Amino acid sequence: MKPDRVLGIDPGLVATGVGIVTFDEHERPRALYSGTIRPPRGETIAKRLYHLQIRIGEVISEFQPDCVAVEEAFYHKNVKSALTLGQARGAALAAAAAADLDVMELSPKTVKQAAVGTGGAAKEQVAAMVVALLQLDNPPDSADACDALAVALAALHRRAIPAQIRS
Amino acid sequence: MKPDRVLGIDPGLVATGVGIVTFDEHERPRALYSGTIRPPRGETIAKRLYHLQIRIGEVISEFQPDCVAVEEAFYHKNVKSALTLGQARGAALAAAAAADLDVMELSPKTVKQAAVGTGGAAKEQVAAMVVALLQLDNPPDSADACDALAVALAALHRRAIPAQIRS
Repeated sequence: MKPDRVLGIDPGLVATGVGIVTFDEHERPRALYSGTIRPPRGETIAKRLYHLQIRIGEVISEFQPDCVAVEEAFYHKNVKSALTLGQARGAALAAAAAADLDVMELSPKTVKQAAVGTGGAAKEQVAAMVVALLQLDNPPDSADACDALAVALAALHRRAIPAQIRS
Repeated sequence: MKPDRVLGIDPGLVATGVGIVTFDEHERPRALYSGTIRPPRGETIAKRLYHLQIRIGEVISEFQPDCVAVEEAFYHKNVKSALTLGQARGAALAAAAAADLDVMELSPKTVKQAAVGTGGAAKEQVAAMVVALLQLDNPPDSADACDALAVALAALHRRAIPAQIRS
């Protein structure tokens, strides 16, 4: 059976992290791709959102993931930043649906647990474990790319566990 | 010269209002279309956002507007609602950019002024004036559709005023 392949996305208007993870033949998680989409800053918001969708579509076409994973939107203190994040997130989710992929939403706690084993881990611990678990030669090119790999990794593990023993 | 044709959008995940306005041969504003997009409620958010984009794309293809107008996102009290609105708005803006249309953002005050003549008008006054100014036989099918016509109307007037006398 073809192993699962997950596209993790950490959406943002300035920088959106994307990462593709799967299991290798020894059932070890591996990253097939990691990157950061940076829509041109001089463009209008509409064009930047469209740029984001185009790039996500290209990554999906190239790596043919089985599903998309994002972190549940955490609730910003700031209403303005929630609106901005929402716009980028909306564009990213629509790009996933355009490719007919289901989207898994995982809580920040679930993502941390999958990487570090505890839901209360610090961001730096998660980043270090993502590099170690995926045996990356180089760290991801941004914190967003790292977060995208972390959520993809958590979704990959979750999908690998049969539903009856998951709950 | 071909008169301007504006697509107004009032984005929302449950209901998105859309309206197309232009000038007739007597330079009176007229509505060519007004409607409400209601993405299937049982679907995932990603699919509903994609549905929104598809429908906006269809309206653009059918009516070939010259630009898109939206109200500046007003700042919700609630962070969660700002995030939800942001997602719908992001999908709508990306759909405009996908059709290579510029997006005008107008303040709520500007929209009210264009319809009623005062920036402090009540929502009901704006709705009544939209019906009167556009000489609609029937009121729009939702408050969102009405808001979409109002923002399109304001953008149409703004575009009709030469830049040198606008400022």
